[in-house]
Amino acid sequence: MNENQKSDREIGSELNPKYDSNGLITAVVTDVSSGDILMVAFMNAEALDLTLETGIAHFYSRSRQKLWKKGESSGNILNVAEMRIDCDQDALWIKAKPAGPTCHTGAKSCFYRRIENGQLRDAG
Amino acid sequence: MNENQKSDREIGSELNPKYDSNGLITAVVTDVSSGDILMVAFMNAEALDLTLETGIAHFYSRSRQKLWKKGESSGNILNVAEMRIDCDQDALWIKAKPAGPTCHTGAKSCFYRRIENGQLRDAG
Repeated sequence: MNENQKSDREIGSELNPKYDSNGLITAVVTDVSSGDILMVAFMNAEALDLTLETGIAHFYSRSRQKLWKKGESSGNILNVAEMRIDCDQDALWIKAKPAGPTCHTGAKSCFYRRIENGQLRDAG
Repeated sequence: MNENQKSDREIGSELNPKYDSNGLITAVVTDVSSGDILMVAFMNAEALDLTLETGIAHFYSRSRQKLWKKGESSGNILNVAEMRIDCDQDALWIKAKPAGPTCHTGAKSCFYRRIENGQLRDAG
């Protein structure tokens, strides 16, 4: 990659995601109302395309190695309100309106524990 | 890993980060005041330990393949206000008080562009 291409990726208006060696990009989902981070996952190109097309968040499950429509079985889908991409286009920020609890544990957010003195505490 | 270990990781109070095959864990930094996502990066065990010890965010640079104290040259360090970890302990949420602009482009946040109809627009 030459410097111009790098610059285009950083300042340009072209969506040009930089997938990693596994074809994935990090996606962080926040609640558009509270601003809290709900979950962090990965998308491949197919998941990103489907998310942009449908307005519902799709990911790629690394453990199951397949496309994953979040909430497909639970009904707890994530309706996309806004999407952003970072400077070097290797991370996505999805502001979403969640249909229910986002975490598979039943918690609103996957980030329900705080790190305190090397231990985990309920973040309340 | 048996089911009990999985359960411990998800509901327990022991900090037990699940590093990927490269020894890394995703770290998302938000501004503790505005709630905005400032950047997304990776930590290895050393970076996480240093972050917990010093209260200043450290990462692992994949491109430079070395420990990276954010702001070491620019002075734009990230003072950690709170840290959280997600359900399966493979992602960190750092609420930070930034000493200056977080992005190397000079922007407050790396997420300065919104995706709109397949194009990028200034998020303003």
